[in-house]
Amino acid sequence: DKRFSLIAGPCQMESRDHAYMMAGALVEMTDKLGIGLVYKSSFDKANRTSLSGKRGIGLEKALEVFADLKKDFGFPVLTDIHTEEQCAVVAETVDILQIPAFLSRQTDLLVAAARTGRAINVKKGQFLAPWDMKNVLAKFTESGNPNVMLCERGASFGYNTLVSDMRSLPIMASLGAPVVFDATHSVQQPGGQGGSTGGDRRFVETLARAAIAIGIAGLFVETHEDPDNAPSDGPNMVHLKDMPRLLEKLVAFDDIAKA
Amino acid sequence: DKRFSLIAGPCQMESRDHAYMMAGALVEMTDKLGIGLVYKSSFDKANRTSLSGKRGIGLEKALEVFADLKKDFGFPVLTDIHTEEQCAVVAETVDILQIPAFLSRQTDLLVAAARTGRAINVKKGQFLAPWDMKNVLAKFTESGNPNVMLCERGASFGYNTLVSDMRSLPIMASLGAPVVFDATHSVQQPGGQGGSTGGDRRFVETLARAAIAIGIAGLFVETHEDPDNAPSDGPNMVHLKDMPRLLEKLVAFDDIAKA
Amino acid sequence: DKRFSLIAGPCQMESRDHAYMMAGALVEMTDKLGIGLVYKSSFDKANRTSLSGKRGIGLEKALEVFADLKKDFGFPVLTDIHTEEQCAVVAETVDILQIPAFLSRQTDLLVAAARTGRAINVKKGQFLAPWDMKNVLAKFTESGNPNVMLCERGASFGYNTLVSDMRSLPIMASLGAPVVFDATHSVQQPGGQGGSTGGDRRFVETLARAAIAIGIAGLFVETHEDPDNAPSDGPNMVHLKDMPRLLEKLVAFDDIAKA
Amino acid sequence: DKRFSLIAGPCQMESRDHAYMMAGALVEMTDKLGIGLVYKSSFDKANRTSLSGKRGIGLEKALEVFADLKKDFGFPVLTDIHTEEQCAVVAETVDILQIPAFLSRQTDLLVAAARTGRAINVKKGQFLAPWDMKNVLAKFTESGNPNVMLCERGASFGYNTLVSDMRSLPIMASLGAPVVFDATHSVQQPGGQGGSTGGDRRFVETLARAAIAIGIAGLFVETHEDPDNAPSDGPNMVHLKDMPRLLEKLVAFDDIAKA
Repeated sequence: DKRFSLIAGPCQMESRDHAYMMAGALVEMTDKLGIGLVYKSSFDKANRTSLSGKRGIGLEKALEVFADLKKDFGFPVLTDIHTEEQCAVVAETVDILQIPAFLSRQTDLLVAAARTGRAINVKKGQFLAPWDMKNVLAKFTESGNPNVMLCERGASFGYNTLVSDMRSLPIMASLGAPVVFDATHSVQQPGGQGGSTGGDRRFVETLARAAIAIGIAGLFVETHEDPDNAPSDGPNMVHLKDMPRLLEKLVAFDDIAKA
Repeated sequence: DKRFSLIAGPCQMESRDHAYMMAGALVEMTDKLGIGLVYKSSFDKANRTSLSGKRGIGLEKALEVFADLKKDFGFPVLTDIHTEEQCAVVAETVDILQIPAFLSRQTDLLVAAARTGRAINVKKGQFLAPWDMKNVLAKFTESGNPNVMLCERGASFGYNTLVSDMRSLPIMASLGAPVVFDATHSVQQPGGQGGSTGGDRRFVETLARAAIAIGIAGLFVETHEDPDNAPSDGPNMVHLKDMPRLLEKLVAFDDIAKA
Repeated sequence: DKRFSLIAGPCQMESRDHAYMMAGALVEMTDKLGIGLVYKSSFDKANRTSLSGKRGIGLEKALEVFADLKKDFGFPVLTDIHTEEQCAVVAETVDILQIPAFLSRQTDLLVAAARTGRAINVKKGQFLAPWDMKNVLAKFTESGNPNVMLCERGASFGYNTLVSDMRSLPIMASLGAPVVFDATHSVQQPGGQGGSTGGDRRFVETLARAAIAIGIAGLFVETHEDPDNAPSDGPNMVHLKDMPRLLEKLVAFDDIAKA
Repeated sequence: DKRFSLIAGPCQMESRDHAYMMAGALVEMTDKLGIGLVYKSSFDKANRTSLSGKRGIGLEKALEVFADLKKDFGFPVLTDIHTEEQCAVVAETVDILQIPAFLSRQTDLLVAAARTGRAINVKKGQFLAPWDMKNVLAKFTESGNPNVMLCERGASFGYNTLVSDMRSLPIMASLGAPVVFDATHSVQQPGGQGGSTGGDRRFVETLARAAIAIGIAGLFVETHEDPDNAPSDGPNMVHLKDMPRLLEKLVAFDDIAKA
């Protein structure tokens, strides 16, 4: 078992400059700790709570920036796709296509993503049991693409709350795929009476420690230099300045978990 | 308050002949009871549990049959759409566009559906609270289409189980939209360890009685002359021969509810 | 199937005068509608959220008042018991012993209640499935007392929320016992950050209509002439003045349900 | 922060000989690892699923064995109490009185336990939120006994399933009490259609690793030399022979968590 990889970046790609600043900081801290980095950002937030939520810089511009980031930093990049049409276009540049949790049962999207031949990170729907991911995984492998990661990001628990069932990590691993834990969206408080989704970043470290101690292939964490003013998922994102201390602790746990 | 409308039909459109047989039977029984009928079928099941699940007869053929059914029977028809591209095409023929529960937060799909000007039936995501539908509804109204029904179809309750929270009916009604109760999908046992979704049709009448007594604008029930051999949702569909007795009881409850 | 019985009264027995006033009003309205009345009050609230919550007038005094109420009004009375020792004493006067939901798995209490020979109303624990009540029921019948009602009062649904799964009514009925629906405690919002349990009486009618339409043997509703100033469960109790209209509606539904 | 304590032993006290065998083995392994041991067994299982479930050797005999174990091994002992009357008697011998989860809201029991002056381990009800334990804790402190541990043992999650919300550990710690994680009962599958409660011991290590990495004061694990033939909680208990390897791993995580 090797060290966990980190899938990290700001929730949205905000601008070329912002992406370079974030990427530089993340490369520096992960290099120091010997952690493999996958750079993550969304080019579009397709399921915002309200129409007025900011949606990102768009596909074309984002792909240009992703291509340049890859050339300059040498890391793989990950982004989420929402329609069949996006799959082939995004796959020209992006190394890992991510299937959003709400879309984890949409057959045509899964097949289109599979057919690009790119690696896939599919998030477990909030409405699915961990063993249900067997069927989701089969849609990829039966489409000829076994290069799939299964990602836990919380299960519906009453209204406006998610719970992270840590048993899902070994259950999904037993399906034969690398398992990723998304510590950012697992602390969301979805919906609520207002027009955006809340969350509580205090628990990102709590849940990340738990998942790493259990043993995972990848950890997903969104981060921002000023999360309280970020265009989306601000309440859940970790302050960039808090990342090095968090990662250092997690590396120590990971070493024990995989000893 | 007027009598509830019935949205009914077989889960999938199986063939022209089957559709005519079902439509004829439903028209006869609803005419007798003075219930308005909306004929429902899917042309594609886009989120089957496994790749080998049957997906339906396809868009083009289904639209032809829908057009002929409308002409011959005079009822409005409803079908579910899954991509932005389908919206305008389907809207040429179909009176009510239905947004599947898993897709109830996909902004682009909601806006595309809204812009057709057709009536919308949006199912509440299994991961949403009833008050969260305020934001879903706003995406339609802010796109210029206030002709929207909100549909309860069960909330995630642990793994592989849904629960129908009957409080959601008055809560969604207080948002200012007509409320539909889907008695078929509310009795689903989603996922599970096997390759298809189960259910228990014994509880369709239980939940339909409850919803009608509380007071709803529409009731959604899938039905089939041989549900145990139907291509999808068989465990949840009511036997066609059991529908008249069920509807007769529900009409009696509806009269009290709206007295 | 005969008309539902009503188990009703103020949550706590507050005083002899208050009990007589409530009992008189309930007898008048149920007589007019042909509903059998069981008068309910607690002599002690043994599981208040905080130590400072008011606990009631006490066992001895309550039994005196119950005895006089029975003599003067002719109805059976129901109260909840919390310890084995209370069972025999309470059973001298009280017709139906009620087992609180939290205590529905406490074997010694169940056996002691069974052995009094009195009828039992056992509330389903918020942590139990409806089919789990088979084992609870068996503890009574194996102790020689088959005179048991099973009562739905909500299931845990995330934090600080209950949900009423209406499927539990036919499931529990299939175990062979009369089923009661508690419309008061089903709308509780248990715990929360404060020092008492909240609730929302707006949904008492919603859930009572649903349960009656499905078909139940008994309906449990707490009521008070001034619920907002009642010593416990105020947020869930129905205003006494609203009861006649509610009951009239429910009788009409019950007639249809049992036709 | 000092190393976690281990609360461990067989679920039931089966006999003097069995208790001495278990105690000897646990003392040996915890001494080697520098872990403080609290020996746990129940003298009575008061809430078995069915009447025929074995209930234990009884109070009087158990107290004698506890007294001798304490004298011979020098460890503190813990047992669970179910009635007010038991509190003072048990407290003469037993160091830590444990309040079962179902009884965590029973005021009189909590006050009686508090008044013994003994340390208390109160399990969070499966129907409570972690912040609700503030009120439970206050019942002890307002009774003059602040020596209370708060114990997570799973929250209701649909039917016949519990989920361990790891956020509850820091939330309960913020109330000012030491937090214990019960890795045995958190993997229970309560109730179900049969006559006993199931479970899955494979996840004991999963959840124990998670809790230790987050940082807890105590870990509760039931163990048995032949769990599949144990009189209760067999499916959840760890094989005694597997304990040393498990504890060694947990000590390594604990050292990191508290560095």
